[in-house]
Amino acid sequence: MARIVQKYGGTSVGDVDRIKNVAARIKAIRDAGHELVVVVSARAGVTNELIARAKAVCAMPSEREMDQLLSIGEQETIALTAMALHGIGVEAVSYTGAQAGIFTDKVHTKAKIKTINAGPLEADLRAGKVIIVAGFQGIDDDGHITTLGRGGSDLTAIALAAAIKADKCEIYTDVDGVYTADPRVVKDARKLAEISYDEMLELASLGSKVMQSRSVEFAAKYNVVFEVRSSFNNNPGTIVKQEVAYMEKVLVRGVAVDKDQAKVVVSNIADKPGSAAKVFKALANAHINVDMIVQNVGRQGVANLTFTVPLTEKEKAVHALEVVLKEVGGEVTLDEKIAKVSVVGVGMKTHSGVAAALFEALAKVGINLELISTSEIKISVVIAKDKADEAARVAHAAFGLDKL
Amino acid sequence: MARIVQKYGGTSVGDVDRIKNVAARIKAIRDAGHELVVVVSARAGVTNELIARAKAVCAMPSEREMDQLLSIGEQETIALTAMALHGIGVEAVSYTGAQAGIFTDKVHTKAKIKTINAGPLEADLRAGKVIIVAGFQGIDDDGHITTLGRGGSDLTAIALAAAIKADKCEIYTDVDGVYTADPRVVKDARKLAEISYDEMLELASLGSKVMQSRSVEFAAKYNVVFEVRSSFNNNPGTIVKQEVAYMEKVLVRGVAVDKDQAKVVVSNIADKPGSAAKVFKALANAHINVDMIVQNVGRQGVANLTFTVPLTEKEKAVHALEVVLKEVGGEVTLDEKIAKVSVVGVGMKTHSGVAAALFEALAKVGINLELISTSEIKISVVIAKDKADEAARVAHAAFGLDKL
Repeated sequence: MARIVQKYGGTSVGDVDRIKNVAARIKAIRDAGHELVVVVSARAGVTNELIARAKAVCAMPSEREMDQLLSIGEQETIALTAMALHGIGVEAVSYTGAQAGIFTDKVHTKAKIKTINAGPLEADLRAGKVIIVAGFQGIDDDGHITTLGRGGSDLTAIALAAAIKADKCEIYTDVDGVYTADPRVVKDARKLAEISYDEMLELASLGSKVMQSRSVEFAAKYNVVFEVRSSFNNNPGTIVKQEVAYMEKVLVRGVAVDKDQAKVVVSNIADKPGSAAKVFKALANAHINVDMIVQNVGRQGVANLTFTVPLTEKEKAVHALEVVLKEVGGEVTLDEKIAKVSVVGVGMKTHSGVAAALFEALAKVGINLELISTSEIKISVVIAKDKADEAARVAHAAFGLDKL
Repeated sequence: MARIVQKYGGTSVGDVDRIKNVAARIKAIRDAGHELVVVVSARAGVTNELIARAKAVCAMPSEREMDQLLSIGEQETIALTAMALHGIGVEAVSYTGAQAGIFTDKVHTKAKIKTINAGPLEADLRAGKVIIVAGFQGIDDDGHITTLGRGGSDLTAIALAAAIKADKCEIYTDVDGVYTADPRVVKDARKLAEISYDEMLELASLGSKVMQSRSVEFAAKYNVVFEVRSSFNNNPGTIVKQEVAYMEKVLVRGVAVDKDQAKVVVSNIADKPGSAAKVFKALANAHINVDMIVQNVGRQGVANLTFTVPLTEKEKAVHALEVVLKEVGGEVTLDEKIAKVSVVGVGMKTHSGVAAALFEALAKVGINLELISTSEIKISVVIAKDKADEAARVAHAAFGLDKL
């Protein structure tokens, strides 16, 4: 008998038939004698409907009321899922975030879990009931409903798995695991059987949209082993866990492409101490995520700064820069026709030559590198956006990712 | 400055525009300096949608999960109403039943309010905020969400008015008050300015569908004066309050017609002690509301029992009777072509002759009385259903209800 936490996303519980399908999957596991806590999201589309209604009554809805409103999406799904289980003879009970004792801080719409008081839930679990928990939501110390932000249901599942010391945590989503590359771009991409937290984090933050970084970080912090898999088939997924020695035998675990970045060049700023600091301080104050920073000195006395920002933040970035450049001089140019291609693998830590192999492979097909940045387990290059898919295929083949 | 509790039903908050209309009404009252607690129902139709979804996943949904599901209807409305108020510059905060401290017993789908812990709500109220509370719902001592059953939002408003010692309680509904008779039947029916709890209770239980009896009983118990009025206009409604001396000057306050009853005749049962008891015990065990009981002895040694049951319970009643009649003998006949017409007024307590006046008026137009029953403040007669509207008009005129 194992204690299992499962999480089903909005697509998996998107309508009455899919909820029944999830109930049937749960019954099979329960019938095998396992203890089961199931976290569900709102039905796909419900959250957007509620947001539209909120915007119709108020241009800038308060975050406190937004949480009060959006939390009903999951509350609907937990009740329907519990009922669907009753309908096929499985004892089940639904828990809102508050009922599950998920206490958060007071930051509405992106609250952090502080503690989980799983006492009542554990009692029902030991009594043989399947527990259905509303993902994405919690409650603060004053009884206000909070939500956990994007990817919040994954976080609920992983945090609950840690709190009740689950043997397994399964994240059901609409992809059936983590691949060596996006299978829509790289035909011979393979599903990974295992990946380390660090690799998963780099892939998550590099545009592989399987999971939000914060859920993976939480899992790493509490050492929660979890599996990403599909609720539409029974294929094994990808297990995400602490790095182990044999993982390092693989140099590169996967290739990620991020087309949602823009390159910013700040040219001809005064080449004196403090200029760059002022520029990045202005961007930080505007809460803009800056990446891949390169500085080079140009003609005498002036320097160029190059970096990337998310496409969604480009207007904010340009506005912040225009203000600061009045002080330090220089001009801004923005290039949206770029993409970031990265190779990730914990094996890089102990092997050199990965960067050289990547650059050589890209050079062979005539792909020009505009920016380069590396970490212990990642090498990223910025290239022309129209070359991004080709670069991913070339890198995938160069590191033998198409072979088992 | 007054402290006012208002309740808006599902039609009044039926869509985004109506929610904005309610917000504008609230703003006007708040701007006049009053403290305001507003109870809202789910948008009209939402509850039925949720019930349909529940039935689609499970033929007999559990009542605990049904409450978990249905409570989201009001939670949506409170958040949207608070947002609509923010949109027009009114400070407001929404409260679920649990957040408003509405503690109930554990009887899901028809819970009773045990106590209200209005501390946090009072603090927000004193801080100048408009409080928006989800009607129809509460929480039990173990944190399970409960609902209060039909008319539950009215009950929430009246109970909150008692708990926070409100100066006024206004129940906004789709009728604009309590009338001397149904205006669709009796053309010259007038809206009553005032009515006593007892009269309102008799009218509520006699098929005048303005409010459920339990809300009126609760108001009577805690002496909460409330007004029934419409949210679609600014007309004064009907004030429901403790009986006062001048109310007794009016013999009859109103006429009610109930066409949702069936007459049951149990004939030829053995006329010996205990036969009638067995019949009514069987009906009570089947939770059937029996009214207007008449027993008469027929041919030697046998008796007839006549009474009414709600049309919705007729099958259950006949079934229960068939079982018991195997034991005591006798046959059942059911007459659905009847209606109950009643006149109600606290003035009857101190005046005789009301019954005689009613019977005479009905006799004059040739309406035959099948059953008669009276209480201190009510006289009811069962007549042929196709004469019901005429009987209401005749009674209305006989007691001068068409005159101011």
